[in-house]
Amino acid sequence: MDVDNVFHMTGGTGRTSYTNNSSLQKKASDMVKHITLETVQELYLTTTPKTLGIADLGCSSGPNTLSIIRDIVEAVQTTSHKIMVPPPEFQVYLNDLPTNDFNSIFKSLPEFSKKLNEERKDGTSTTSPSIFIGGYPGSFYGRLLPNNCLHFVYSSYSLHWLSKESTLTQVPSALYDEKGNSVNKGTIYISDTSPKEVSQAYLKQFQENFSLFLRSRCKELTEGGRMVLILLGREGPNHVDRGNSFFWELLSRSFSILVSKGVVEEEKIDSYDVHFYAPSKDEIEEEVRKEGSFQLDRFEMFEIERNEKKNNNESPGMTIAMTVRAVQESMISQHFGQGILDDLFEIYGRLIDEEMAKEAIRPITFVVILRKL
Amino acid sequence: MDVDNVFHMTGGTGRTSYTNNSSLQKKASDMVKHITLETVQELYLTTTPKTLGIADLGCSSGPNTLSIIRDIVEAVQTTSHKIMVPPPEFQVYLNDLPTNDFNSIFKSLPEFSKKLNEERKDGTSTTSPSIFIGGYPGSFYGRLLPNNCLHFVYSSYSLHWLSKESTLTQVPSALYDEKGNSVNKGTIYISDTSPKEVSQAYLKQFQENFSLFLRSRCKELTEGGRMVLILLGREGPNHVDRGNSFFWELLSRSFSILVSKGVVEEEKIDSYDVHFYAPSKDEIEEEVRKEGSFQLDRFEMFEIERNEKKNNNESPGMTIAMTVRAVQESMISQHFGQGILDDLFEIYGRLIDEEMAKEAIRPITFVVILRKL
Repeated sequence: MDVDNVFHMTGGTGRTSYTNNSSLQKKASDMVKHITLETVQELYLTTTPKTLGIADLGCSSGPNTLSIIRDIVEAVQTTSHKIMVPPPEFQVYLNDLPTNDFNSIFKSLPEFSKKLNEERKDGTSTTSPSIFIGGYPGSFYGRLLPNNCLHFVYSSYSLHWLSKESTLTQVPSALYDEKGNSVNKGTIYISDTSPKEVSQAYLKQFQENFSLFLRSRCKELTEGGRMVLILLGREGPNHVDRGNSFFWELLSRSFSILVSKGVVEEEKIDSYDVHFYAPSKDEIEEEVRKEGSFQLDRFEMFEIERNEKKNNNESPGMTIAMTVRAVQESMISQHFGQGILDDLFEIYGRLIDEEMAKEAIRPITFVVILRKL
Repeated sequence: MDVDNVFHMTGGTGRTSYTNNSSLQKKASDMVKHITLETVQELYLTTTPKTLGIADLGCSSGPNTLSIIRDIVEAVQTTSHKIMVPPPEFQVYLNDLPTNDFNSIFKSLPEFSKKLNEERKDGTSTTSPSIFIGGYPGSFYGRLLPNNCLHFVYSSYSLHWLSKESTLTQVPSALYDEKGNSVNKGTIYISDTSPKEVSQAYLKQFQENFSLFLRSRCKELTEGGRMVLILLGREGPNHVDRGNSFFWELLSRSFSILVSKGVVEEEKIDSYDVHFYAPSKDEIEEEVRKEGSFQLDRFEMFEIERNEKKNNNESPGMTIAMTVRAVQESMISQHFGQGILDDLFEIYGRLIDEEMAKEAIRPITFVVILRKL
């Protein structure tokens, strides 16, 4: 596995053929960005607002947080130049949970603005873009912004995380029996040992969360506004496959190894659940249809390997393990204690390497384009 | 001196009498807040917008950052309840420089929203307020927000700080001679030893900055929008008095003591300037008149002692010294090195105590209410 930002296209909706996979690598990478920029350009062309409201929901705070904003701004400016109208003001809303490190994004803003102004001196525009960037902390499973302030919503690799406020442990009838004991023993996500109630409970929370997301954005978006939602998903009705769920299966196995070593108590695993859900295409379409204020313009399925850090001498499995650790660490240490982290993720990285040597793991990414009716 | 948040009223505009000062302490404290809330209520009554845009420019990140926002929201809600219209959505823009600690404000937001909702259950309103709070890093000496998005601007104790981007050291003809040597020797602000060019250079930068502030807000505010600007000022035309400038005079003297001890080089003081200016009422009115898009609704002058921290066993002078240190530390250590800080501010605190024992130091605060025409 290439540990760079390498994207593998798996083919369009519903297609399961992975032929010509390697030759499509670069294309798939370009394709996701291309779809995003094409969508915002088409939106701008049909509405040409004086102020364009853009939100990045789940923006995080890595070095690339602002790069998609730069791409979007430049794409819209190019379009406005082509159709010979003055470029719009951009109002950019950066959102993530209140614990996100907004300070580091904010510290990079002066440099970001400076660069954007320099790049614009290439002759395609005589004036610097007016960009007003604000940080909006909070859960996107609920309202974040005033009515009708948005034209374009972008959300990348965030919507597969379930709300932490309405946790699965609040669905005791499904994941826990009358005595409060877990019915999902020995695993942390939907596994082949999980009873049917478990996948139903996860689906129910996904439905509640995604529906609330749609209802909230519906108020915030103007008519004709677009959303580009990039999230992890699964190919078919089965939860247990060699896609995204398989990474949680391997993390469950890593926990089990720590149980067999006497480092972790078995009951601790029973009562731990990842706040994650990989929906199917049908499940997404169903919620969009039920909510009723959005039209599904486009649905693409890709196989994208997201390995943002390239660490020398690190195996592909360990790189994935470190990525998962960065996201899960706070919750795992709260539940199991910090002491197990190093061991756990070393085992995890090794298991991923072993499994990938046997057969590919194919994490599926959806790109969903919705239009506000 | 009471080291709580005790406010001393000095009397209205132009009045120099300080009689009955102590009996007016509480009144002055209430008065500044009262003026703020009265202004926003009057604004709301005359415009009743569906979304009310409020900015706190120079919001800082102390425990009280959000308390004025709470007061404003509650005042508007009370007014909307009285006139029996639905309360507006609130869009709150919190601004400070990109180095401000926005993370800690953001982490306190969930608790802030929770409390505000609880308080509203008192029967005056049946619905929770819709408040959308964003952080907008950047200098308010320039544009921060899109056109016409604001109804109310609040800025407390920020506008006496001059822009760091256009520093005084960029006015070499005034503060520095042809060889680059300071003409403002042995002092860090306007002092009785300063040649006339020095106060002229400070005034010029204040004029540029304040005028740019007005021009920027003019675009962002809707017609009829209000600004409540609270800033340090001076009573008359003289720069050298026992008001705000006297605190810089005492800091200059503290530096001189370190020079006499051989700890600081004299030239270092010559080339250091505080990015501060205490304008007179006339100077503010002049810029408002020249800019032309605002009407001065009200101008109040107070003597307000701002000692937010009450540290046990700390003298009043040392409390003031610690407050000044918190603001100046980064710049002083960059110029003089970190090693002098403890000594410098210990001397400074002692000098303030000594001077206050001789005769009161009376820092003047202006409250300026402007209306967008």
